[in-house]
Amino acid sequence: MGNASVKDSKPSLEERGFGQSLGLAGKACFLVIDVINGFTDPNLPMGAELGPQIDKINEFLASCRTRDIPVVFTAIAYEDVDLPDKGIWFEKMAGLKTLMAGTEAVELDRRLAYRKGDTILTKKYASAFFGTDLSSRLTAAKIDTVIIAGTTTSGCVRATAVDAIQYGFRPIVLSDACGDRWQQSHDISMFDLQQKYADVMTTQEAIQLLSHKQPTGKEV
Amino acid sequence: MGNASVKDSKPSLEERGFGQSLGLAGKACFLVIDVINGFTDPNLPMGAELGPQIDKINEFLASCRTRDIPVVFTAIAYEDVDLPDKGIWFEKMAGLKTLMAGTEAVELDRRLAYRKGDTILTKKYASAFFGTDLSSRLTAAKIDTVIIAGTTTSGCVRATAVDAIQYGFRPIVLSDACGDRWQQSHDISMFDLQQKYADVMTTQEAIQLLSHKQPTGKEV
Amino acid sequence: MGNASVKDSKPSLEERGFGQSLGLAGKACFLVIDVINGFTDPNLPMGAELGPQIDKINEFLASCRTRDIPVVFTAIAYEDVDLPDKGIWFEKMAGLKTLMAGTEAVELDRRLAYRKGDTILTKKYASAFFGTDLSSRLTAAKIDTVIIAGTTTSGCVRATAVDAIQYGFRPIVLSDACGDRWQQSHDISMFDLQQKYADVMTTQEAIQLLSHKQPTGKEV
Amino acid sequence: MGNASVKDSKPSLEERGFGQSLGLAGKACFLVIDVINGFTDPNLPMGAELGPQIDKINEFLASCRTRDIPVVFTAIAYEDVDLPDKGIWFEKMAGLKTLMAGTEAVELDRRLAYRKGDTILTKKYASAFFGTDLSSRLTAAKIDTVIIAGTTTSGCVRATAVDAIQYGFRPIVLSDACGDRWQQSHDISMFDLQQKYADVMTTQEAIQLLSHKQPTGKEV
Repeated sequence: MGNASVKDSKPSLEERGFGQSLGLAGKACFLVIDVINGFTDPNLPMGAELGPQIDKINEFLASCRTRDIPVVFTAIAYEDVDLPDKGIWFEKMAGLKTLMAGTEAVELDRRLAYRKGDTILTKKYASAFFGTDLSSRLTAAKIDTVIIAGTTTSGCVRATAVDAIQYGFRPIVLSDACGDRWQQSHDISMFDLQQKYADVMTTQEAIQLLSHKQPTGKEV
Repeated sequence: MGNASVKDSKPSLEERGFGQSLGLAGKACFLVIDVINGFTDPNLPMGAELGPQIDKINEFLASCRTRDIPVVFTAIAYEDVDLPDKGIWFEKMAGLKTLMAGTEAVELDRRLAYRKGDTILTKKYASAFFGTDLSSRLTAAKIDTVIIAGTTTSGCVRATAVDAIQYGFRPIVLSDACGDRWQQSHDISMFDLQQKYADVMTTQEAIQLLSHKQPTGKEV
Repeated sequence: MGNASVKDSKPSLEERGFGQSLGLAGKACFLVIDVINGFTDPNLPMGAELGPQIDKINEFLASCRTRDIPVVFTAIAYEDVDLPDKGIWFEKMAGLKTLMAGTEAVELDRRLAYRKGDTILTKKYASAFFGTDLSSRLTAAKIDTVIIAGTTTSGCVRATAVDAIQYGFRPIVLSDACGDRWQQSHDISMFDLQQKYADVMTTQEAIQLLSHKQPTGKEV
Repeated sequence: MGNASVKDSKPSLEERGFGQSLGLAGKACFLVIDVINGFTDPNLPMGAELGPQIDKINEFLASCRTRDIPVVFTAIAYEDVDLPDKGIWFEKMAGLKTLMAGTEAVELDRRLAYRKGDTILTKKYASAFFGTDLSSRLTAAKIDTVIIAGTTTSGCVRATAVDAIQYGFRPIVLSDACGDRWQQSHDISMFDLQQKYADVMTTQEAIQLLSHKQPTGKEV
């Protein structure tokens, strides 16, 4: 796609008020979206190659550990035998049927630097806020900034970022720690998110942002 | 963007279960997203040229009238003097401050074939479902299919379609009746929506779909 | 409490429009709220004696089986070691800490005529709709009437009934199949629900209502 | 009702963990529920006599003004000619049809010490959180404690308090600043709320609580 043309039009976008910076207002949490085997094994119907993104997620996780920033991993998993709890979505994406609770496919990828005590939040839809108690957890823990990575960029990451700002939280999306099955969808989602819904930055930029701020997190 | 490459990979996508058809299950409603002056006047900070899309919306509205399909127009409008009700979103997109309740900017574009009795739903965020009673209205009226058009494709249209399927409704997005400030964002959103969240079709295709089905709507 | 006085004022309430009948509009489901050991063992901090109510629930379950009405059992369960996912609620009711995932306390009471294939929906708050995908499941399955029983009347049953009508569903509450720790709270909740939010009737009355109607349910 | 018996059982309730204190954690807002003419004129179908409660609300409002605590007044109002936006609720309570947008019935009672700049939040259901952006506003403004008064205790006040704690906020309910059409419903709702969902206290007690804390509010 034409990244060039996007950059060319950027001054005009700024003049029109798009793409302002939200910043890091207070207490942050790190939300790792759907880095489960069903999405990270390229041989599975819904999988993609996400090795480099997992490295970046682990880099950011290390930074979270030194700053006591709470971490939430999400996973999609369907529980019933005939999958009646998937609702309409399953009719659109037949691959969802590979994400059965209790199977390897819905477990976190072992390459992740998961640590006992991190929260694992099971969801059934695209947004990590939909049909879960995530918003209540964040509010109760006085979190205001949600740093997001994972997969897929144009699916669950994007839906989660849009919901984050709708619910009143400040989303930061780590561009090099998010991946998608389709590069164009990744690229344009990052553009759309930065213009309208989230602060998009690299993992390194986010680590630097945190280093200038010392949020005191607690378990969500 | 590379429509070609997207098409090339399509057989493989189908094999992997993406992009299945949701169809028109029962009773439909037509949801026209944010076709207000603030978004349709290209001279305003958040505006874009949407003449052709409005023609298509009117074409589909005519079809709805003959089939008694209820119509909901959404509008974004902020009410308080200092706009404290915009929440965090206003910090990301400064242009939102042009959408003041009681001003011309938040009124429906006069080119729309609006009819007295159509519902106007005011919202403050991207998704027409967020912070509104839309889901309750649709459920109470036993609507199951939500046909969506309007603006912007990559913003409120997309967020509304994703929420529609999350809430358990079947979204149909009218590709030629939706517009965006950026063509690439429009194109990729249509691709993403069709693969994962909605049935994407032209206005003409949707009219033909309706003509094979006679849903009996009532006011939402 | 003065049931008498409530009855005395009833004509006046009716004149003022309270307590109208919602009826059974189309497809129903049966929602059994929190009949788990932690609530049905009177020796536990949050427990109460609920034997007669369980008998009534089973009576209604038998009726559901012959009519293919889907059944959802809810359970409260908290997963994390230090219970950070309970949010603020745990600070109000310390007894919630007895409801740990994986323990006997959060399992369905064995006296219930649970059947493989019935849905078990885990929740963390009072309303079965809050922080769950219940609304989406009901909408996707085209359910419009939600028949509610379980415990506690003034807690999770009441919150679920109020949410049901808010989400656009028709709630029916089975008065003799709901129980509470406190009789007065039960009695007044039934009065409030009948006046403002739900059709309150006995299990027998609901069975008769169903026998005049043959909804064809499917798994939610 | 037997307040005596409720008090008698209280030691036991405390031992079982009910009725703990939530306290005032950080920044508060004052939420005045539905003190509109349709509910405060005893001659209207949904009205009740609420003079003493309005005095208490004004007493607390004065305290809020000196502490810069933001104030939100809610109002119920239906907009469409045939009221299709009331959903199922209207079928249960026919009196809701008296609450038409643009009429005197949905305006705030003039006895209230409303001040320009206070937020007026229109809602269509019982809970002030349902189908509105209240949760997002509170989160964006970093409010964590919601002090609630208004009417009716067993209806919109109670539903709002239950939702407040579900959404992760700390509810305080002002017992003498809330009113109901039925005294028993008021009394038992206060008991239920105090045991399970909110800190119930008198207006005077809440003013004293605030005087020991100086939250710095801003407009929600």
